[in-house]
Amino acid sequence: MLSVNELALEIFENLAEFAEEFNAAYHELGNGARIVDCGVSTRGGYSAGRAFTEICMGGLGEVNFRMGEISGIPMPFIDVNTDFPSISCLGAQKAGWTVKVGNYFAMGSGPARALALKPKHTYEVIGYEDDFDSAVIALESDHLPNGEVMEKIAAECHVDVGNVCAVVAPTASPVGSIQVSGRCVETAIYKLNELGFDTTKIISAIGSAPIPPVKKDATRAMGCTNDATIYHGRILLTMKAPEIKDYLDKIPSNKSKGYGKPFYDIFKEAEFDFYKIDTSLFSPAEVIINELTEGVVYHVGAVNPEVTLKSFGLL
Amino acid sequence: MLSVNELALEIFENLAEFAEEFNAAYHELGNGARIVDCGVSTRGGYSAGRAFTEICMGGLGEVNFRMGEISGIPMPFIDVNTDFPSISCLGAQKAGWTVKVGNYFAMGSGPARALALKPKHTYEVIGYEDDFDSAVIALESDHLPNGEVMEKIAAECHVDVGNVCAVVAPTASPVGSIQVSGRCVETAIYKLNELGFDTTKIISAIGSAPIPPVKKDATRAMGCTNDATIYHGRILLTMKAPEIKDYLDKIPSNKSKGYGKPFYDIFKEAEFDFYKIDTSLFSPAEVIINELTEGVVYHVGAVNPEVTLKSFGLL
Amino acid sequence: MLSVNELALEIFENLAEFAEEFNAAYHELGNGARIVDCGVSTRGGYSAGRAFTEICMGGLGEVNFRMGEISGIPMPFIDVNTDFPSISCLGAQKAGWTVKVGNYFAMGSGPARALALKPKHTYEVIGYEDDFDSAVIALESDHLPNGEVMEKIAAECHVDVGNVCAVVAPTASPVGSIQVSGRCVETAIYKLNELGFDTTKIISAIGSAPIPPVKKDATRAMGCTNDATIYHGRILLTMKAPEIKDYLDKIPSNKSKGYGKPFYDIFKEAEFDFYKIDTSLFSPAEVIINELTEGVVYHVGAVNPEVTLKSFGLL
Repeated sequence: MLSVNELALEIFENLAEFAEEFNAAYHELGNGARIVDCGVSTRGGYSAGRAFTEICMGGLGEVNFRMGEISGIPMPFIDVNTDFPSISCLGAQKAGWTVKVGNYFAMGSGPARALALKPKHTYEVIGYEDDFDSAVIALESDHLPNGEVMEKIAAECHVDVGNVCAVVAPTASPVGSIQVSGRCVETAIYKLNELGFDTTKIISAIGSAPIPPVKKDATRAMGCTNDATIYHGRILLTMKAPEIKDYLDKIPSNKSKGYGKPFYDIFKEAEFDFYKIDTSLFSPAEVIINELTEGVVYHVGAVNPEVTLKSFGLL
Repeated sequence: MLSVNELALEIFENLAEFAEEFNAAYHELGNGARIVDCGVSTRGGYSAGRAFTEICMGGLGEVNFRMGEISGIPMPFIDVNTDFPSISCLGAQKAGWTVKVGNYFAMGSGPARALALKPKHTYEVIGYEDDFDSAVIALESDHLPNGEVMEKIAAECHVDVGNVCAVVAPTASPVGSIQVSGRCVETAIYKLNELGFDTTKIISAIGSAPIPPVKKDATRAMGCTNDATIYHGRILLTMKAPEIKDYLDKIPSNKSKGYGKPFYDIFKEAEFDFYKIDTSLFSPAEVIINELTEGVVYHVGAVNPEVTLKSFGLL
Repeated sequence: MLSVNELALEIFENLAEFAEEFNAAYHELGNGARIVDCGVSTRGGYSAGRAFTEICMGGLGEVNFRMGEISGIPMPFIDVNTDFPSISCLGAQKAGWTVKVGNYFAMGSGPARALALKPKHTYEVIGYEDDFDSAVIALESDHLPNGEVMEKIAAECHVDVGNVCAVVAPTASPVGSIQVSGRCVETAIYKLNELGFDTTKIISAIGSAPIPPVKKDATRAMGCTNDATIYHGRILLTMKAPEIKDYLDKIPSNKSKGYGKPFYDIFKEAEFDFYKIDTSLFSPAEVIINELTEGVVYHVGAVNPEVTLKSFGLL
């Protein structure tokens, strides 16, 4: 079985060694834990954003950038593809680990989760667990973790703290915008998993989303980066699973309550309480499914350029 | 002179060594022949599809994936470019070798052809022959070749059977869809060669085609994958050949008999007899030619989104 | 501090070693200077064009190709991104060095400029100077430089002539078309610098432009390649600089005198005298700016498909 931590470690080590070329900064803590700052006290950018996203996907996804357009307005896009959708998206990329140690808080994602089994249920349904002596975690946070945080991660992953590697970037940063839009495919896999569909039947996935502009603060950035996928994410899933036809209606974001407004407005109306938001909103705008046992194609949802541009501040 | 087998061998060896990361499987036969299964008993996917296509092109083409759209419907596209159009497309990628040994049947393509000179005439007109001690062949088939098949290939290529490498994928598979749409540029070079044009005058070529959905069986998959290029392939050729103006009318697919229907329907009307089909249909939908000695640009043909979507099952 | 010459040297050495795969030719002069011909007596192509452009950017930019379209007509596009806009674009890529030795003339660009400080003022405003024992220069010329030219470059760069590396391509060549459209981002950075804006505040940049067809002669090629950016270049700049709002009006090309006609016509009306042309024309057609301290987005300019296609000979 492939090790998502082993594959991500290679990407991390290249990022650490050539940190300056990535506008990133490498730190080794006193206890040996290794951190690459991709946007807390550094600028980051496209190269760091690609490395961060590919680390999140456990080395099992490919990431590219190109200039695209939304209703005639130029906008950079991220293209993501993976041949291991359930492992790379649910087993690694999903932000399934809330890292909280003392005052430190970060949304944790990436392959380290496959060692700590966060959450355990996910790894049971996808039938995957990693077994490797190093852990690579991606932290979405405005602050770098200290030694104590890294020791907690090490303990949960059952590895030495000297073998824990973290990449860190705030939501409201260039890498933040890239790595969240880089979750466009993950969102589709996540939604199907939440609906009870067996995502191990998905053979491969490709998708794109606009890379949203960086906002001033984390809350507004969260709005903008989610909108990139909710209102403009487009995904194609290839699978062997005729039962998918029972799930079609529920896949795209436009079937959820609250759809039609920028995420920030929905969040504000919910008084910034995540638990009041209809989670079915977290889904790509438009999905094509190629089901192989019947050789058919399904098309659900649609992009919403108006809300996307409004959210991005371009309308 | 560059060796297309040497360049392809590098790609093959990477694919063989890291087969699991490509959702592929590596087999070494008793006689030493090496095979990577990219879709017969494996899932394959985007990474295997790129490697398969780049092997087909003898390591002289570049392949990328991105999400695009057809009449507003999202669809993945393959982008291909080569600076050696006649060698990579006619000397390697063209499916010019029908491999038939006992019950085994496969359409053979890739650099091995440049050792076996299949067909000889092609190598005479492009003035290229390979000379290398390993042969790399791409087989479009639902079955893996056995030792006997590989020995036949070795003999035809004048190499030891232990130096024969094959990648294999069915037409109706993820890699099948990718590698056939990856022939979009080849189809243009092939058509010009068939028309008697000297393709060695083409300096470079770039093109794209939608990656068609995978169909249930080989015949329907053949229809769908051909339609990707016939109805939506777009190519730009850069050349030094003012005589190209005499060929313009005959290049795009829309000048052929039968144009306007999905290929499967044409094939069915011909009672599934390939020899009854107008071969001039095998051509990209739209071609731009940049002729350098006169510094001019020609534009012929047009994409046909309706037939493309109909063929793909989206209309 | 990163060395743009060190990073570019790696790309140069790969290009030199595998010159044949790039349709290029490697020459070592009697005095040890090294040259890769990317289009003078060679064909060049996409691979050489990417290497040439990445060398121009001092190894701090990424270059990709894809098929796009202009008003429904297929056209290849170059995508460029950099996380070091001022260093890679102004400190390296800008054609800021007129190389004139005896009868030899070439527009010089690339990292060697950061050793010779051509022009010195540029390096003062961006606060960057390189310090490396090898110099890599990109020459836009119909002729290869001789030993004397390379010695002059060595002297200006304060390195041994045996450590000078040059890539050379004519304007009217496949690599010429690629490397000039590859300046789409640079043009935006250049324009802002000319307007007095501090470009070191730009964090990252991404952009695209059509790759123009190759024309018959250098003057017409100059027209066509400039039009690719002036009428169809699209750039997104990410920066921390609220003062950018005072510059917005002056950024896109459509604010300049002469805008609206193919560059060749403007040049002809100016009796082919560069100094009579309004230099504010050298700018991308459309620019999006993401300013981070205020978390805002600005959008200026627009592409002009009609003039682009007219210039390319497609209308």
